[in-house]
Amino acid sequence: MSGISVNGMKPRDNTVLYKDKDPLHQKDIDARDVGTPDDWVPRHPDLVRLTGRHPFNVEPPLPALMEQGFITPASLHYVRNHGAVPKLEWDSFRLSIDGLVDAPKVFTMDDLVKMPAREIPVTLVCAGNRRKEENLRKQTIGFNWGAAGHACSVWKGVLLRDVLLECGVKTPDDGANHVCFVGAESMPKGRYGTSINWFTAMDPACDVMLAYEQNGERLTPDHGYPLRLIIPGYIGGRMIKWLTEISVTEAESDNFFHFNDNRVLPEHVTAEIANAEGWWYKPDYIINELNINSAIAYPAHQELLPLEGDGQKYTVKGYCYSGGGRKVIRVELSVDGGENWTLSKLTHPEKPTEYGKYWCWCFWELEVDVSELMMGENTELLCRGWDAAMNRQPEALTWNVMGMMNNSYFRIKVHRCLHPTTSKPALRFQHPTLAGPGNFGGWFEELSLGPAEAKS
Amino acid sequence: MSGISVNGMKPRDNTVLYKDKDPLHQKDIDARDVGTPDDWVPRHPDLVRLTGRHPFNVEPPLPALMEQGFITPASLHYVRNHGAVPKLEWDSFRLSIDGLVDAPKVFTMDDLVKMPAREIPVTLVCAGNRRKEENLRKQTIGFNWGAAGHACSVWKGVLLRDVLLECGVKTPDDGANHVCFVGAESMPKGRYGTSINWFTAMDPACDVMLAYEQNGERLTPDHGYPLRLIIPGYIGGRMIKWLTEISVTEAESDNFFHFNDNRVLPEHVTAEIANAEGWWYKPDYIINELNINSAIAYPAHQELLPLEGDGQKYTVKGYCYSGGGRKVIRVELSVDGGENWTLSKLTHPEKPTEYGKYWCWCFWELEVDVSELMMGENTELLCRGWDAAMNRQPEALTWNVMGMMNNSYFRIKVHRCLHPTTSKPALRFQHPTLAGPGNFGGWFEELSLGPAEAKS
Repeated sequence: MSGISVNGMKPRDNTVLYKDKDPLHQKDIDARDVGTPDDWVPRHPDLVRLTGRHPFNVEPPLPALMEQGFITPASLHYVRNHGAVPKLEWDSFRLSIDGLVDAPKVFTMDDLVKMPAREIPVTLVCAGNRRKEENLRKQTIGFNWGAAGHACSVWKGVLLRDVLLECGVKTPDDGANHVCFVGAESMPKGRYGTSINWFTAMDPACDVMLAYEQNGERLTPDHGYPLRLIIPGYIGGRMIKWLTEISVTEAESDNFFHFNDNRVLPEHVTAEIANAEGWWYKPDYIINELNINSAIAYPAHQELLPLEGDGQKYTVKGYCYSGGGRKVIRVELSVDGGENWTLSKLTHPEKPTEYGKYWCWCFWELEVDVSELMMGENTELLCRGWDAAMNRQPEALTWNVMGMMNNSYFRIKVHRCLHPTTSKPALRFQHPTLAGPGNFGGWFEELSLGPAEAKS
Repeated sequence: MSGISVNGMKPRDNTVLYKDKDPLHQKDIDARDVGTPDDWVPRHPDLVRLTGRHPFNVEPPLPALMEQGFITPASLHYVRNHGAVPKLEWDSFRLSIDGLVDAPKVFTMDDLVKMPAREIPVTLVCAGNRRKEENLRKQTIGFNWGAAGHACSVWKGVLLRDVLLECGVKTPDDGANHVCFVGAESMPKGRYGTSINWFTAMDPACDVMLAYEQNGERLTPDHGYPLRLIIPGYIGGRMIKWLTEISVTEAESDNFFHFNDNRVLPEHVTAEIANAEGWWYKPDYIINELNINSAIAYPAHQELLPLEGDGQKYTVKGYCYSGGGRKVIRVELSVDGGENWTLSKLTHPEKPTEYGKYWCWCFWELEVDVSELMMGENTELLCRGWDAAMNRQPEALTWNVMGMMNNSYFRIKVHRCLHPTTSKPALRFQHPTLAGPGNFGGWFEELSLGPAEAKS
């Protein structure tokens, strides 16, 4: 924090990023939601349901996510709900702020909208992104996220620091060390909540926001209507939706989910060991900042590439993100099992914030000689990203009981085949997993579950 | 930066960490320095010279570093000098500050000492730490750092932000984007300099300091007497010694060394390609924040362990650090090539700063069953660290032309032998490299250079 105020730094106009209303927005209630507590929430039918009909936990198919480009419409944005969507009204909604503040207050939505607004694109990532790979190694306590458990939208709201300053927030000198959040989402173990430290909450460079708009429209029910927390560069699990209570405290949150969710425990710690030995309460295993991660989107799973012969090219494409505002500075591709790596072309659609932070995913592509893919034995396409702190993705997966933060190399298998229509030589590509509980013929799925045909 | 000033946060008393004067300080001039421009600089004879007699580039033997514990005396702290040590006097020394400030000023040392002081332990790491492993893969343009190219001392000085505020520093709104530094160290290409961005310079959480004391004593000539820059969590290469000029600028430093040093370029970029294709000027390849890194210190290289039979234990020990204030949260050890990992016991001697930052190395240890080391074939001890952002060390080394930021798994070979004195069964341990230009019998040295006996 600085005594200097950075006056005159006007936020950029991000409305250009979402000129249109969400073109994919659904008005209809999906048949699968009928008879559930969510049968009033319109949802996009293409979203892949990861936990059956209810609660609603979904990601889009990876190609559908990528086709939208830099900004993901709310309707295709991944959703992580624990229970039923709280049915809240703009006019009657209240946000209370108390604890170590001089003047506890209750805000209406109109109060918040009148305050100075911040509007920036931010990539949200579920800490479980790519968990299915972990589950196929050994079952975790979590469900099967694929590689599209993340999305990037333009979020508009008021900075948390501004709201706290309005309430006369005390400082760590007075014991104000943490800021706790509770949402309206209720489970048998109580309402969902967590906390972050005071400095992150108060640092304007961290851009912690209370958001009421996504891509120029009021939030949808699945994304926290009317108000949610946005903490750029953090895991999605801390960004409380339907945010109703904020409390400034000396100790971190005592919410059940603050301790029993969003941790990465060492590999030997099973659920039984975690409970028996108190691992959920060991402070070092909490996760906040995202790590560096990337995946290959094209070629897509089961994509077919007819072979044309000499000089044929194919452009491999994917995404990459990192945490803490660290810029992604390289993504590389290997076709020889990781011995040699070729630098891809990176595209960062975002401009860094006024504080030099990168809060969004970026895109990479590399044109490869198809002959290289065709001639090798057991060819795989591997990608790995690096961030500005020279951290790069690790080769191999490290299993953990919650199945979180998997950022090992993303690997696609390349198979030679005869094109099913033309019977001419072609290549067929196979992703490791596809989101959801089934066996959809990913190579990592088939390794663990046997051929897809036999099961699906 | 924040409008809130965090008043009353008193720095801790760190003097307890270095109660005594440097017990290892040398008054004598080393015979190797006679006849060089440095023949007035007292130096510790145990330091390993990496670039011959002159210029002075040294690290201590790894066991010597570890034996000192958390705080490294100045006399055993690694040194990276490019040329002769500038001979500067406290009384006549001047620091000038100009550029985008309202009131350019010239400070004497006494001016700086009168300002509010900050005193904190900080681990400094040369970006070349563990470079010898890279050089043995393929020669880089740098010399052979071992795994002790880092050290931790208590640094006392004035915060850069306080000095800049005293000069009426302008803000990024007025184009003040960077802060440039030049030291008195002169080379054929000019004086050594670099820059950091304005926000890092001004953020009190970043603790960027102009230091005039190390462990309670004025700086030594090799460490920048009378004044040097300290940027916690950054590579040592940005911490300009003998700091004489600071300039607040719109563009980053135009110093030769700012561009031609301290970069990590992709693996295919040789020195020729770098020069021909302008890689030194591509902005993404600059390095600032350290990445996560660790090494095994005990067993030491060529350490012998007599085998005692059933129930024998050995405690493996080492260090770990990361960058950006990110806490090291795990170090793990494997004895089966990385298939299985056991969590070590971590010790963080530092307390985090008032802003929650971790600027220092930490220590880990793990008691292992000696039978496990004895019974395996081609047994290796591997360690890897994880930081709070869930970044972990990668398995394999990625070569780069400057040989920087190598943080691949540290591997020690375990050999069965007969103890040379007793002729009884024993284990002999072999590190990958030892600092310096020779072949000292590390296993990675022998792989690349042949048996040490034949050459040394």
